[in-house]
Amino acid sequence: MPDPLRIGRHTLSSRLIVGTGKYATHAQMQQALERSGTDCVTVAVRRERLIDAQGRNLLDFIDTSRYTLLPNTAGCFNAEDAVRVARLGRELLSGLENPGADWVKLECLADKRTLLPDPIETVKATEQLVADGFEVLVYTSDDPIVARRLKNAGAASVMPAGSPIGSGQGVLNANNIRICLEYLKEGDPEYPVIVDAGVGAASDVAAAMELGVDGVLLNTAIAHAKDPLRMADAMRLACEAGRLSWQSGRIPKRLYATASSPDEGVITWQPAG
Amino acid sequence: MPDPLRIGRHTLSSRLIVGTGKYATHAQMQQALERSGTDCVTVAVRRERLIDAQGRNLLDFIDTSRYTLLPNTAGCFNAEDAVRVARLGRELLSGLENPGADWVKLECLADKRTLLPDPIETVKATEQLVADGFEVLVYTSDDPIVARRLKNAGAASVMPAGSPIGSGQGVLNANNIRICLEYLKEGDPEYPVIVDAGVGAASDVAAAMELGVDGVLLNTAIAHAKDPLRMADAMRLACEAGRLSWQSGRIPKRLYATASSPDEGVITWQPAG
Amino acid sequence: MPDPLRIGRHTLSSRLIVGTGKYATHAQMQQALERSGTDCVTVAVRRERLIDAQGRNLLDFIDTSRYTLLPNTAGCFNAEDAVRVARLGRELLSGLENPGADWVKLECLADKRTLLPDPIETVKATEQLVADGFEVLVYTSDDPIVARRLKNAGAASVMPAGSPIGSGQGVLNANNIRICLEYLKEGDPEYPVIVDAGVGAASDVAAAMELGVDGVLLNTAIAHAKDPLRMADAMRLACEAGRLSWQSGRIPKRLYATASSPDEGVITWQPAG
Amino acid sequence: MPDPLRIGRHTLSSRLIVGTGKYATHAQMQQALERSGTDCVTVAVRRERLIDAQGRNLLDFIDTSRYTLLPNTAGCFNAEDAVRVARLGRELLSGLENPGADWVKLECLADKRTLLPDPIETVKATEQLVADGFEVLVYTSDDPIVARRLKNAGAASVMPAGSPIGSGQGVLNANNIRICLEYLKEGDPEYPVIVDAGVGAASDVAAAMELGVDGVLLNTAIAHAKDPLRMADAMRLACEAGRLSWQSGRIPKRLYATASSPDEGVITWQPAG
Repeated sequence: MPDPLRIGRHTLSSRLIVGTGKYATHAQMQQALERSGTDCVTVAVRRERLIDAQGRNLLDFIDTSRYTLLPNTAGCFNAEDAVRVARLGRELLSGLENPGADWVKLECLADKRTLLPDPIETVKATEQLVADGFEVLVYTSDDPIVARRLKNAGAASVMPAGSPIGSGQGVLNANNIRICLEYLKEGDPEYPVIVDAGVGAASDVAAAMELGVDGVLLNTAIAHAKDPLRMADAMRLACEAGRLSWQSGRIPKRLYATASSPDEGVITWQPAG
Repeated sequence: MPDPLRIGRHTLSSRLIVGTGKYATHAQMQQALERSGTDCVTVAVRRERLIDAQGRNLLDFIDTSRYTLLPNTAGCFNAEDAVRVARLGRELLSGLENPGADWVKLECLADKRTLLPDPIETVKATEQLVADGFEVLVYTSDDPIVARRLKNAGAASVMPAGSPIGSGQGVLNANNIRICLEYLKEGDPEYPVIVDAGVGAASDVAAAMELGVDGVLLNTAIAHAKDPLRMADAMRLACEAGRLSWQSGRIPKRLYATASSPDEGVITWQPAG
Repeated sequence: MPDPLRIGRHTLSSRLIVGTGKYATHAQMQQALERSGTDCVTVAVRRERLIDAQGRNLLDFIDTSRYTLLPNTAGCFNAEDAVRVARLGRELLSGLENPGADWVKLECLADKRTLLPDPIETVKATEQLVADGFEVLVYTSDDPIVARRLKNAGAASVMPAGSPIGSGQGVLNANNIRICLEYLKEGDPEYPVIVDAGVGAASDVAAAMELGVDGVLLNTAIAHAKDPLRMADAMRLACEAGRLSWQSGRIPKRLYATASSPDEGVITWQPAG
Repeated sequence: MPDPLRIGRHTLSSRLIVGTGKYATHAQMQQALERSGTDCVTVAVRRERLIDAQGRNLLDFIDTSRYTLLPNTAGCFNAEDAVRVARLGRELLSGLENPGADWVKLECLADKRTLLPDPIETVKATEQLVADGFEVLVYTSDDPIVARRLKNAGAASVMPAGSPIGSGQGVLNANNIRICLEYLKEGDPEYPVIVDAGVGAASDVAAAMELGVDGVLLNTAIAHAKDPLRMADAMRLACEAGRLSWQSGRIPKRLYATASSPDEGVITWQPAG
């Protein structure tokens, strides 16, 4: 593994974590996971999400010897419910002997319409799950202060949203992600920060990685593309491209190449006449 | 070749075309070309650019059996000079028996400071080079009307700038590139449009490809990155990612996932009270 | 008053609220307030901010018969401190018989370096101050869920940041401000939402108002401009312009005028070949 | 006149120039012109645009003692036609004894669909009209090299488009407008540069002026707003606000106020491991 992503006790070879929902068929999901290059997939463990209308269990369609499962608490709207579902996930995965039994992706949403996370319930649930021995990967808004509180509460990874779940807008506020990175990596440069949600296209993934985050988690952008399998390829390549681009030290932006800065030659102030 | 780029009589397997200037050493250039995955490299054929201070010829460091050379007229500031240099390139490459002898990347700049192209001299040079039997790949600004004139003048490919050469700003005006595509591909969807210049990072390449252009040409973004070889990897992956992402049919952008459009719920007009 | 801004029991004629800190001199502040057209100025009531090195009290330089004072809790980093300072402000303003004695701008920051607000302490302080009879105008991040919690806690106005205090970046995430507006004005269209912090130039104020917010609060953009008085003029005009522009129902954005949408003619998906 | 706009022999008190087309009624146009605060209105002089279906002449509805008319060549698609129409305008305005008889707004478009200007025909027409004694205010794309050529051809003012006519997208490429300003004002700081076309809302006008341009010309943004008269007010205020904001020397943009630059604290390069 040349450049592994370490989150708590887990080590992943791919920096792309992929969801398992919203696919047209289980077969399509299987192929998309494979082509995404991921070795970690997140699974909603609430019963109504795990078992489909035909009574089939999603987990039966995932090669659990290949992928580390990351159980998530999708569909939970308060701390109590999220903690309950996280424990359910642990049980399920322990039964499968999957290494994902000891961690959880915590989602504690505030609203079914916008799917935005609830910062206050999220902090509360993080504290409880950490106390309960979980490695908590916590989905949150891009608010840097909430992000810092979540790390202080013991989260193994903070995962700020680029934009609302399923909105396809990419990282809307790079400034906030930068401040999140500054806070979360201060004196702790290996602390994993993952952009979770909002990605729409491959360039969004690359641009997120170029901010210096450690990984990207996505679902809808692949599952609801017109050609999900091809988009899975695109996302795999974009994640690697963005990581390498960030590591490579890009050229500065300038108004034109020989200008010393983007504003050279710009008259920014005219003395009062 | 699964998804080749066809430009006139040439067929390329990679959609990334890479320049050969500005590298610290010839060895670094050789490795960067290889890692970029390109099969087409562009070379300035003016003597002062081809031969270095030690009297070494750049072409001696490029495997001309592997890469199609694309001679360019960098350093030319009017049509007459550009036409002369293009002919010089043809001679040089004929001598090497390289398939690039019959085409040229036309650069006809207006200003050494900004390196912006001169539309009027560029149109003139295109007409003369087409008459002279060249396949002309023409560097131009993102002005859609100039782009259309250049195609009408017989250019084999129009190559609008994303932003000024070496500025690292990516595609500044996606609207103009979209109108260029609309004009240049109207009734001729295979006509090759290539974003040339301005790219700074991998996400810029992916974003350009997601607009539907057929390829990207770059130089400084690799050559002047802190780690050029790693950036060459990044650019190779980003170009593939962007192509696939465009082909995959991305999800729409929305204010949030369940909103029917990015503006749903937005009160855009308040009747006079 | 043709289009007053109503916040709780207060009615303001201007939609621009202006800070009183960071001016070179008291005289400059006085003139800037006047030229900004505001009728409401916010004042930090902590002793070390109110009294300068020469022992002069800021309030002696503000015409309290002309401006409604809005005491603020700048310099407070937890709920307890903020509540204490808010009460101090009430006492001070009661003594001056200023109508601002019954309200407060709540700032509860998390970090002296970034000056970002602490959502959790802010919610706590809001609850306490509302219980204490204050009209609370609450500074917060642009997180829509926190904004909704603050309204539910009884805030008279929620004031999301456009970008960090003093950063001059304007509204960085219009999407979040739009969702804030959707939440806060749902079934309550007159509820006042004010962008507080981050504004750098006049266009930022106009753009914020065009999102449909009810007002803008700013300080540094005027006080630290090279010519603060002229910038005060600019901000007054921009606030009115943005309000009118929003009320006027702007033309839609299009790729070009005869395109039915910005994406018309754009080939967004190429079927797999 | 505190801060007049000088274009050749003309001096205007307002920096907003307004079009006269696309209004629902002549009365609405009259009121919109008045409320925009302009003292210069542009009028299409082709017969089919000047005379309406009822045989009424637009000029009969404009107070030519109050406004300097700026005849324009809208509807012309080559240099020859544009020159002919410009001369027709001169005749018309000489008959009215309006000071606008000696200047012209040159529009030489390439395409009825996009309404984009044709740079090559525009240069040609500029040369002819300058030779013919006109003061030429020339509409063009934002291509800085074309802009420079037009000034060199003798244009009294160069007027780059912010975005396509009627598209409502504002200034899409501030980088190009900045380079236009650098070229056109080099050694000639009073040379008037006016953003013409593309404006949608008040903030667009303010943002354009904050780039340091000397004025803005618009039409559709007012005429097709839901409430054109109110939008005329907005545009008047926004133009003044943007001018003052530019003159005032805005605060710099930063990641947060105490950061020394927007990128402070940002890890932009990770040494190869």
